[in-house]
Amino acid sequence: MATIKVAILGATGATGSSIVNGLLQSSEPRYEITALTRPSSLEKPAVQGLKQKGINVVAADLEGPEAQLAEVLRGQEVVISAIDAAHLLSQIPLANASKAAGVGRFVPCFFATAAPPKGVMKLRDIEDVLNHIKQLYLPYTVIDVGWWYQITLPRLPSGRIDYAVIFPTGHIAGDGNAPSALTDVSDIGRYTARIIADPLTLNQMVFAYSELYTPNQVYDLLEQLSGEKIKRNYKSSETIEQEIAALKPERITPDHPELYALATVEYGYSWGVRGDNNPQYAKYLGYLLGNELYPDMKGKPFEQYCKEVLDGKGVGAYGSN
Amino acid sequence: MATIKVAILGATGATGSSIVNGLLQSSEPRYEITALTRPSSLEKPAVQGLKQKGINVVAADLEGPEAQLAEVLRGQEVVISAIDAAHLLSQIPLANASKAAGVGRFVPCFFATAAPPKGVMKLRDIEDVLNHIKQLYLPYTVIDVGWWYQITLPRLPSGRIDYAVIFPTGHIAGDGNAPSALTDVSDIGRYTARIIADPLTLNQMVFAYSELYTPNQVYDLLEQLSGEKIKRNYKSSETIEQEIAALKPERITPDHPELYALATVEYGYSWGVRGDNNPQYAKYLGYLLGNELYPDMKGKPFEQYCKEVLDGKGVGAYGSN
Repeated sequence: MATIKVAILGATGATGSSIVNGLLQSSEPRYEITALTRPSSLEKPAVQGLKQKGINVVAADLEGPEAQLAEVLRGQEVVISAIDAAHLLSQIPLANASKAAGVGRFVPCFFATAAPPKGVMKLRDIEDVLNHIKQLYLPYTVIDVGWWYQITLPRLPSGRIDYAVIFPTGHIAGDGNAPSALTDVSDIGRYTARIIADPLTLNQMVFAYSELYTPNQVYDLLEQLSGEKIKRNYKSSETIEQEIAALKPERITPDHPELYALATVEYGYSWGVRGDNNPQYAKYLGYLLGNELYPDMKGKPFEQYCKEVLDGKGVGAYGSN
Repeated sequence: MATIKVAILGATGATGSSIVNGLLQSSEPRYEITALTRPSSLEKPAVQGLKQKGINVVAADLEGPEAQLAEVLRGQEVVISAIDAAHLLSQIPLANASKAAGVGRFVPCFFATAAPPKGVMKLRDIEDVLNHIKQLYLPYTVIDVGWWYQITLPRLPSGRIDYAVIFPTGHIAGDGNAPSALTDVSDIGRYTARIIADPLTLNQMVFAYSELYTPNQVYDLLEQLSGEKIKRNYKSSETIEQEIAALKPERITPDHPELYALATVEYGYSWGVRGDNNPQYAKYLGYLLGNELYPDMKGKPFEQYCKEVLDGKGVGAYGSN
């Protein structure tokens, strides 16, 4: 049975946890997982929890000497980065060290919506990491998964799903008719486990999502399942453009505290107004589609997720409840 | 018989002339060609020469209103840009107008070596045109052709090929052992005519070159064919890095007069030292290869070009002799 050695950065985050679980559940291939951890975080309970799952935990200092980081990575076949958005540029030394260590596949931190490489979303603008990877001639795979189920639902008037809707959608960006790709956070890992074992996805971008819904369809479904009526607050493209302009994107550096505020508005603009987050546009951008590569690979249906949330069995994004 | 309507910008330049000839010589499909010309250049002899070849000549003002430019482009199935390197960013309004006009395929001005998208060559750095195209969701094809035969040869001690070697290679970048893709300028048009008729190349990058030679093999061949011995001036990677640093690339804007000086050194660094300009790296970068798509598509062999130059039948780059 094949075993692939994978190192993962950000293993205790929302995306990273899903990936760790997906890798652990894979039977073919099996994955031998190493969590790359900040030296100062080695004793944290979440990191200790990884050890109990049989995961190797090693200290990795992204700000330290690259040669030392390369030593830590030597022997790893795949390196996955699930770093937080405020530290995307820390992937540059990680990529350099991966190249030096002879890593066979580097998975930079994308795991988000399909979007054009530049000019629409600051989070993509600062993903010059991929260009750096290409300059290094480092084998890579980009994985995008669309928008998470866990941050898709609006509140219900009764408040009964507030426990699961930590980041409720308070408005509908645009006219609510743009189909957008959605995935349950818990499926990111299964998709990743499948994708990184496949030679066809080497040096490719893959868009692996579960279902396509327009925002209006999301509201329709939730109304139907809950029996409650939800007010739809549409936010026009002009309003969103004004909000983006007001945040003065040109001054937002990768480590700027308002990056998240900007990213939130720009995400809505990209998938809601422009309609970027769909498989046709992803194919145009050069992505392979997960459901074309692996027709048997199915994620949790969105309707099932909604029912679980209504039944009190939902889990919030970021595992926060 | 299929006829495809193509508009071309820069039809009288070195690349543009080759493309016009390649399109004219194509029998299947046939191309109906329109040259997009600066209003101030309509009366120039080279532009008048296009008319005599049966090419439509229309005024197109890249600095004018985009709606007006879109009117000029309406009905064109393909728009090809062979603009000069100092005006690459003028392709932004051309792309906008092409999108508005419903153009089915936009071919931005690449037609050069395989190289990473960012960080190695300023000419690529300013090719944010492709990112803009992707943001527009404008159908496109990128065509790169490698390095031209016409700027590959060194001088011979006898001076007998000086007439054809307008930009002689005075040194060898790196150790001279990096294989680099080469193409005769006159073949760019034939390759382009084939590529833009192919649905498989839509929204793709294509690397279509004729032969692979290392600089040392170029010198070997020319020595063998000429019977002359040529001094080999190797320039180390460290020297080239110093030359690049001395030019202070960070201050070179797209319209800077030293862009060419920088581009010349950076090209040598990219294909000579890094070895970027080869089919393996091009595939890694996501290019389709011309010789894999069209095994029957052959360009002029480099040896034949060398013999023609030695026989006094060569033509310089830029048609300048």
